[in-house]
Amino acid sequence: MTPAIRSKLAALGNDLSPEMVQGSIGLMAGMNRGLSSDTQVLRDISYGPDPRHRLDLFRQGDTRRAPVFVFVHGGGFLMGDKHTEGSPFCSNMGDFAARHGMIGVTLTYRLAPEHRFPSGPDDMAMAVDWLRANVAEHGGDPARIVLSGQSAGAVHVAGYLAHRGDHAEGIAGAALMSGIYDTHTCSPNASAEAYYGADRRQWGAASCMDGLLGTKVPVQFSVAEFDPDDFQQQAAQLVEQWYAARGRYPEMHFLAGHNHLSPALSVGSDQTEVERMLAAFVARVAG
Amino acid sequence: MTPAIRSKLAALGNDLSPEMVQGSIGLMAGMNRGLSSDTQVLRDISYGPDPRHRLDLFRQGDTRRAPVFVFVHGGGFLMGDKHTEGSPFCSNMGDFAARHGMIGVTLTYRLAPEHRFPSGPDDMAMAVDWLRANVAEHGGDPARIVLSGQSAGAVHVAGYLAHRGDHAEGIAGAALMSGIYDTHTCSPNASAEAYYGADRRQWGAASCMDGLLGTKVPVQFSVAEFDPDDFQQQAAQLVEQWYAARGRYPEMHFLAGHNHLSPALSVGSDQTEVERMLAAFVARVAG
Repeated sequence: MTPAIRSKLAALGNDLSPEMVQGSIGLMAGMNRGLSSDTQVLRDISYGPDPRHRLDLFRQGDTRRAPVFVFVHGGGFLMGDKHTEGSPFCSNMGDFAARHGMIGVTLTYRLAPEHRFPSGPDDMAMAVDWLRANVAEHGGDPARIVLSGQSAGAVHVAGYLAHRGDHAEGIAGAALMSGIYDTHTCSPNASAEAYYGADRRQWGAASCMDGLLGTKVPVQFSVAEFDPDDFQQQAAQLVEQWYAARGRYPEMHFLAGHNHLSPALSVGSDQTEVERMLAAFVARVAG
Repeated sequence: MTPAIRSKLAALGNDLSPEMVQGSIGLMAGMNRGLSSDTQVLRDISYGPDPRHRLDLFRQGDTRRAPVFVFVHGGGFLMGDKHTEGSPFCSNMGDFAARHGMIGVTLTYRLAPEHRFPSGPDDMAMAVDWLRANVAEHGGDPARIVLSGQSAGAVHVAGYLAHRGDHAEGIAGAALMSGIYDTHTCSPNASAEAYYGADRRQWGAASCMDGLLGTKVPVQFSVAEFDPDDFQQQAAQLVEQWYAARGRYPEMHFLAGHNHLSPALSVGSDQTEVERMLAAFVARVAG
């Protein structure tokens, strides 16, 4: 991250205001190279009964039993999409996977308030079921699936590891960017209330913390320098509790100069630190 | 860090045995490009009265008021040197600075058990005094000094920030790799006893933790995946206490695939993540 880009992101502030979100997307879109000409995309494959149970597949060339890299978008449980016409996002994450010789998958999931916890973990399980049954046909290895997610997407992947632990057995790894892991300690807000319900006393059962501390799936975490306070608190708590539970420091990366949105948005630009971080993790756990 | 090199480092184990130390140095020396032909070196400049008060200066071309990057070696307070004939270490750290347009400085300091706390912070202050008075003559900017250190070197730099806080005012930044920050909680060992004294009850006064939590100097921390337990514990504690004190997550980098020694040893090889991490920090705080 260059000091000049860091300054522009810093000027947008840490809070998830519409100006910050649009400013970050605009800045990072202008730096993105877009889909590689070599990348083939299959869009809107259905992985379940809901219209939001859709995924896009990305590959380059004739892969065979390649690692599968799945990206789950954020959006506060309430919004977001795997692909926006005219925007490089989030197809940039599928393209990243394809450029690295993997099968890329971007997907959508059901949204709150219509769909509440555990809809996220359930949708992840459904997508994994589809991949386990079908990704080999598309050149992927169902035994080498790496899940990644940002913000609410990280919460859904973490929720899948924590609350569908048996189903997640055999997942090669999970890369969680700027997530909320403990619903006991996170700050209440409209997004969380939409997904977890209005009664805060019920949220505890949805916490991913204990499940993450116990999972056998390798997990890579990251927190951004300009993440809002809640995400910084969660990252610090995760480090503390992970060390207490496991006696080792977790793979928690600090993304200097990044804000809540920019890590995933930087993939496919000249700011390569996040791309390198993710690629190194996949090479290790699914290489 | 490639999976192949990570495996070799992992096979050496986390403990600081002679085999692990020699194995790490051997492996990483074989990957090092050595001093750049463009780098000019001035060796063994005295910055104080002791024979160990010596520093080497590195530069490329005719710099003027360039940032100054200082590296302080490790060695358990008991050993270590800024330069070993026939080895790329630690001149690789000075060369790194020179390649990035900075003045590089590597230095030695007095050793335990002859010299005990606060000899480390005092030696850092003496070296900074020398640089403030003299580095401009060599093309450096005394207002843009960045200190870095590894292991005991990180402890001495942290000790300088914590125990010589007034003197450290105006230091542009500090990069601390795999240090021990809290002498209340660190495990006792022969190295620490040699430096802090045999009476553990006296160690608390030497702790850097409170001083680090209060310093205005920007600090970059890092912890390695295969750091011994004590260093992992210290990193986790630092994250926890920093968040509690400052309400922000610290700049604590996780160096995947590295052990206690390899981060600094990797500088000047094709494994560029540590070099990028340090260069980005210097660009931000002293660019």
